[in-house]
Amino acid sequence: MASGKKRGKQTVVFDNPPVLTAWSAVVGPKEGDGPWGKDFDFIIDDYMFGEKTWEKAETKMLRETIKLTLSKRFFTPEDVELLLAGDLLNQTVSSNFAARELQIPYLGLYGACSTMAESLVTGSMLMDGGFFERVVAASCSHHYASYRQYRFPTEQGVQSTPSTQWTATAAGAILLEAGGTGPRVTSATIGKVIDMGQTDMADMGCAMAPAAADTIKTHFDDLGRSTDYYDLVVTGDLAKIGMAAAEQLFIRDGLVPKPNYSDCGVLLYDETQGVDAGGSGCGCCAAMLCGPLLKKIVNGDISKLLLVATGALMSPTTSFQGESIPAIAHAVAIEM
Amino acid sequence: MASGKKRGKQTVVFDNPPVLTAWSAVVGPKEGDGPWGKDFDFIIDDYMFGEKTWEKAETKMLRETIKLTLSKRFFTPEDVELLLAGDLLNQTVSSNFAARELQIPYLGLYGACSTMAESLVTGSMLMDGGFFERVVAASCSHHYASYRQYRFPTEQGVQSTPSTQWTATAAGAILLEAGGTGPRVTSATIGKVIDMGQTDMADMGCAMAPAAADTIKTHFDDLGRSTDYYDLVVTGDLAKIGMAAAEQLFIRDGLVPKPNYSDCGVLLYDETQGVDAGGSGCGCCAAMLCGPLLKKIVNGDISKLLLVATGALMSPTTSFQGESIPAIAHAVAIEM
Repeated sequence: MASGKKRGKQTVVFDNPPVLTAWSAVVGPKEGDGPWGKDFDFIIDDYMFGEKTWEKAETKMLRETIKLTLSKRFFTPEDVELLLAGDLLNQTVSSNFAARELQIPYLGLYGACSTMAESLVTGSMLMDGGFFERVVAASCSHHYASYRQYRFPTEQGVQSTPSTQWTATAAGAILLEAGGTGPRVTSATIGKVIDMGQTDMADMGCAMAPAAADTIKTHFDDLGRSTDYYDLVVTGDLAKIGMAAAEQLFIRDGLVPKPNYSDCGVLLYDETQGVDAGGSGCGCCAAMLCGPLLKKIVNGDISKLLLVATGALMSPTTSFQGESIPAIAHAVAIEM
Repeated sequence: MASGKKRGKQTVVFDNPPVLTAWSAVVGPKEGDGPWGKDFDFIIDDYMFGEKTWEKAETKMLRETIKLTLSKRFFTPEDVELLLAGDLLNQTVSSNFAARELQIPYLGLYGACSTMAESLVTGSMLMDGGFFERVVAASCSHHYASYRQYRFPTEQGVQSTPSTQWTATAAGAILLEAGGTGPRVTSATIGKVIDMGQTDMADMGCAMAPAAADTIKTHFDDLGRSTDYYDLVVTGDLAKIGMAAAEQLFIRDGLVPKPNYSDCGVLLYDETQGVDAGGSGCGCCAAMLCGPLLKKIVNGDISKLLLVATGALMSPTTSFQGESIPAIAHAVAIEM
């Protein structure tokens, strides 16, 4: 059944790997105060970003991150053939409104916090398939817009548990081009929805860890690749507790040697910033990728990166109905 | 900038058009009582479909529609390489839970009621691009699950206005294969988000009509195709008022002759069924396509169909914040 571009059950490789020719990360004040502040393009100084609501601020962050990315190549939205984007808000409104304002042909995605990888995977396939030569992949999240949708009225100030994660206020956008100079998307693994029966809405990391481990194992198996192939395997937003769970699953799955592994949710903030288990949200790995990680690739600190963005497909409605939390992870190999 | 598979700004054509080898439509009681009852595969006799909530019933409808489709080719979910699906519920839970149970590698989409076309467009590109040989495209909606999310508690029995549309309880799934016999997806036009400033949540048809007209005009322009090329151009769910608006926009846009045009929201129900302006929801055009329309193609009544699925990217949150309703439409040409 596999075509020439397919490896194993879930992995694709690219004949003409799309090139990441430009990217940007825009983050909120807290993310700017963290250990990577100097690696982001822009730090907004208040959560409203000059708008009247957090939702409008999130849309503006995404839109401006895309425009900034295009400006690095002296492009305007008219020069782009396709926008692939998604976010955490119901009806993915931030992405829809950004697409409305940019007027780029648009395919909306929903993969929760896995969206940055989902958009890169999908965009890379569509480009290598010969349909487009210039595609933008993007995602974002806003702490307060997300918190009040998923949890409690923000003003209520509900106390968090140590397993809770802090949804990042951040946006990342990447311009993929068919030619040019830069890191390339060389392969990708499309995840399955994995659900081990976790029902605790305050511990997303453990809900997502099995999906991450499944996709990572599948990626190495499908490509027959040694687990030390990558300089860094980085999950999207498992944070401290989920990352520890994922490491246990690597051992269970017989991944020897263990991959050189970290997690964007652990990396994004400093221990002192009061984020409980760490970061989360579509913007967490989008900003880490489009900020420090791609900088490390360009600087030569890393030459092979596997980004495994993780999404808890969590719905307050189905959780209140007693359902567990399904999760998904998509992996994208980015190589210099 | 255009590659060999790209025409104009937004349209793609397929070198190896994917074949629709199997499809199914499962609908609710009201849809079964309508004019096309005999053309659907299965009519569920109560809105719970043996489950405890409407949301779980919607998941079951989608999952069973996909399984029925695969069974027509004696396939199991393991034989399928990719599932592309989405729905109207927050976090697209029906699709996520169906993907969890089917264990098919999954890319989640959000295009509201445009999802049936979005999944067909995306799946066709990924197959023609050489990545997959067997893909399922699917979508669904459930009247009561949708109504209580978007509007009012269903039990409250709020009176509707004449411009309101009845969200269909329906699911449609299509198996695309790289070879075989059946209708083919020959070209597609990816829409832009269009918003003419409509703010009335009780009149989605008029919010979506400009997006439909824009995509239809672009499709004919990009392909240099005469407007009488298709035996039928059918929009997804504009219903009576939106369809009349779209017809006015065809005149404005100089589409002469006017395409042979209808709308799934007008077709799905009988005038006497108390659906106000007509049908809507992801399942509306999914079921019309996977029921009567593909039957007409196979029977030779139609040989060239342009499905233009329309999505109102409506969010109660942003509407309450004073935002207008953005909309999108994607077009898929299906030819025998």
